[in-house]
Amino acid sequence: MTKDLLIRNARPFGGEAVNLVIRGGRFSAAGGEPPAEAIDAAGHIALPGLVEAHTHLDKTLIGMDWFENGIGPTRNERILADRKAKRDLGIDARRQSARQIAQTLKHGVLHIRSHVDVDTEIGLANIEGVIETRAALRDLVDVQVVAFPQSGMLPRAGTLELMDAAMKAGADIVGGIDPATIERDPVRHLDAIFALADRHAKPIDIHLHELGDLGAFCLELIVERTRALALQGRVMVSHAYCLGMLDPARQRALIEALAAERISVMTVGSPAVPALPLRLIRECGLVVASGSDGIQGTWEPWGNGDMLERAKYLAQRNGMTNDADLAETARICTFGGAEGLGLSGYGFAEGDFGDLVLVPARTLAEAVALTPQKRTVIRRGRVLVHDGVPAADLPSIE
Amino acid sequence: MTKDLLIRNARPFGGEAVNLVIRGGRFSAAGGEPPAEAIDAAGHIALPGLVEAHTHLDKTLIGMDWFENGIGPTRNERILADRKAKRDLGIDARRQSARQIAQTLKHGVLHIRSHVDVDTEIGLANIEGVIETRAALRDLVDVQVVAFPQSGMLPRAGTLELMDAAMKAGADIVGGIDPATIERDPVRHLDAIFALADRHAKPIDIHLHELGDLGAFCLELIVERTRALALQGRVMVSHAYCLGMLDPARQRALIEALAAERISVMTVGSPAVPALPLRLIRECGLVVASGSDGIQGTWEPWGNGDMLERAKYLAQRNGMTNDADLAETARICTFGGAEGLGLSGYGFAEGDFGDLVLVPARTLAEAVALTPQKRTVIRRGRVLVHDGVPAADLPSIE
Ligand SMILES: [Zn+2]
Ligand SMILES: [Zn+2]
Repeated sequence: MTKDLLIRNARPFGGEAVNLVIRGGRFSAAGGEPPAEAIDAAGHIALPGLVEAHTHLDKTLIGMDWFENGIGPTRNERILADRKAKRDLGIDARRQSARQIAQTLKHGVLHIRSHVDVDTEIGLANIEGVIETRAALRDLVDVQVVAFPQSGMLPRAGTLELMDAAMKAGADIVGGIDPATIERDPVRHLDAIFALADRHAKPIDIHLHELGDLGAFCLELIVERTRALALQGRVMVSHAYCLGMLDPARQRALIEALAAERISVMTVGSPAVPALPLRLIRECGLVVASGSDGIQGTWEPWGNGDMLERAKYLAQRNGMTNDADLAETARICTFGGAEGLGLSGYGFAEGDFGDLVLVPARTLAEAVALTPQKRTVIRRGRVLVHDGVPAADLPSIE
Repeated sequence: MTKDLLIRNARPFGGEAVNLVIRGGRFSAAGGEPPAEAIDAAGHIALPGLVEAHTHLDKTLIGMDWFENGIGPTRNERILADRKAKRDLGIDARRQSARQIAQTLKHGVLHIRSHVDVDTEIGLANIEGVIETRAALRDLVDVQVVAFPQSGMLPRAGTLELMDAAMKAGADIVGGIDPATIERDPVRHLDAIFALADRHAKPIDIHLHELGDLGAFCLELIVERTRALALQGRVMVSHAYCLGMLDPARQRALIEALAAERISVMTVGSPAVPALPLRLIRECGLVVASGSDGIQGTWEPWGNGDMLERAKYLAQRNGMTNDADLAETARICTFGGAEGLGLSGYGFAEGDFGDLVLVPARTLAEAVALTPQKRTVIRRGRVLVHDGVPAADLPSIE
């Protein structure tokens, strides 16, 4: 569903005010008869749709009873509690993913990569639920589905077969998880998921929490396999805390090796874990995307999915306060995410998709620092949210 | 200005629903004829007024032109830029402090400790400006003024005399600043500010950013002087990053030494600096308060002064996600702050001041995680903000 639309007086990525013209759902050159439908952007900043590069749509508890979290701090305790909650709470992946999308759409999130659990208890139920929501809301947002072995793959017989079935059922990306600390066999885990990706001709996205030298070793294994299978530009590593824990020479060498294979990384900017060295990463040309990870679930009780607020978190985590640095974190949550997710037609050039979010702010830095909420969200020329209020004609969600 | 008020169906600090009665501005026992004026709290959580234990009211740029921050990352570059901005931007401390108070009142902040610059360029102008605002808004919020030598005291002749004059002009607390890295003489700096506090019979609050062993040494000097001058319960150390950087034995010993002299600490929970070990600190009985530090100023472009959001930052910084831990961070931003600031009559007991903020949340953890904004703020029985909307009869601010 596309529209023609003239947007007057908008400032793309904080630059000079221009008129933007969308025809047939794509940006077009100005000139000729302008579209009849027009909105006044009042000098607000235009960002291309915000990109949520890492979340878990099937696990949010938005709109459900408060989940009293008494879970211990280890990752294993949390995985067990997460699986138990799926059983006990009856989390409906179709309904919950729609609720999260409705919430983040108001912030201007138009592209989402969601990891979705695949395990021997729930089977493909969550994959199917999120894929149903994706179809129902396809006119609002793009969703990439990662088949994610949250509970482990090698230690739980049957999971690899379920991953294969998830790809056949419509998942877009093969997920992986800590190849050493959870899978207990980094080579066998990575060989298995790279083979799966190769067989289905799909990209890979690996949750890598392994620390220090162990994480660095796993990254090296990922680099080797990306090169061997010519998967350049098709592999993302999520978290990769280890990159913030190495001595400077090793750190730079590893970042350069990742960049050389056009592997991208995703960081949440969480304050309780090592920070990715964003300045060095940028200098080395490594693509960085960002995401919210879980929103209001059993893992973490907070989160609103606002990727402009996420840009603020990235800046705060890295001790960045000046305007240029804040603009860079805004870039990560837009263009960085688009590159990491392999989106085409993203941006304001002629022929790009007519997607944007208008943010009432004087500078990009102010947009990041104060995250104003009365945004206008436009997709393919259609106004989905106007000054923070969803349009009346949106498909009903739930 | 006090009122009698009945508050029905409120849950003090997330507990059972009760009716609260305020008479003559203080909580009173139920029973007898209830006050004629009543509000329905609808089962919302009641927190005593949120406590902002560390901010800089004289430096916020709220409502002014966007300040384009091109400042380098060192503390010295930032101090120079801060002093230059005060000159160039003409920051009016009276007006700006009122603007910040108006903003944070909506969140339910009823107690503020503000450091206020004293230096040889601005003299006492900022102290006088904030004291003027304090008087104008005394029916809305309590403000403690710290005379703060932001630009250094020993290296800038005349500053100590200005500090003395600030205390005579009505400042409540003697401030200090990095005794080694800025002052270049920890003993002489601390001796000077402890002597000033002793002479004026006022408490002390020291900005201590010194790292590792240097910071620990400064803390030891502070402990010794607190003991010698019998200032137990009257000294706060702000930031104290070093407490998060020591080996476990040294860390515990130092925390116990601080607790023994009833020195309190204040942490912002910033993600870019070492985190205070909140669990150990609690175990040792050291009082912790929290604050926003600067809000929307030249140091940092962000901040809204919501101390419930601050509780979330503390939890995130410490990797805390379960309900009990989140309740503890809410305690730090209320009762912890009150104890650190030496407030009397704080809480829900009979005779305590009739101050509270109603937060629409099911549990304390939800209040911290989601920081709902439609709060009702009551001070001395008077409704200042109702469901997020300031009362019509508030004194005009500016
Ligand atoms: Zn994840
Ligand atoms: Zn400060």
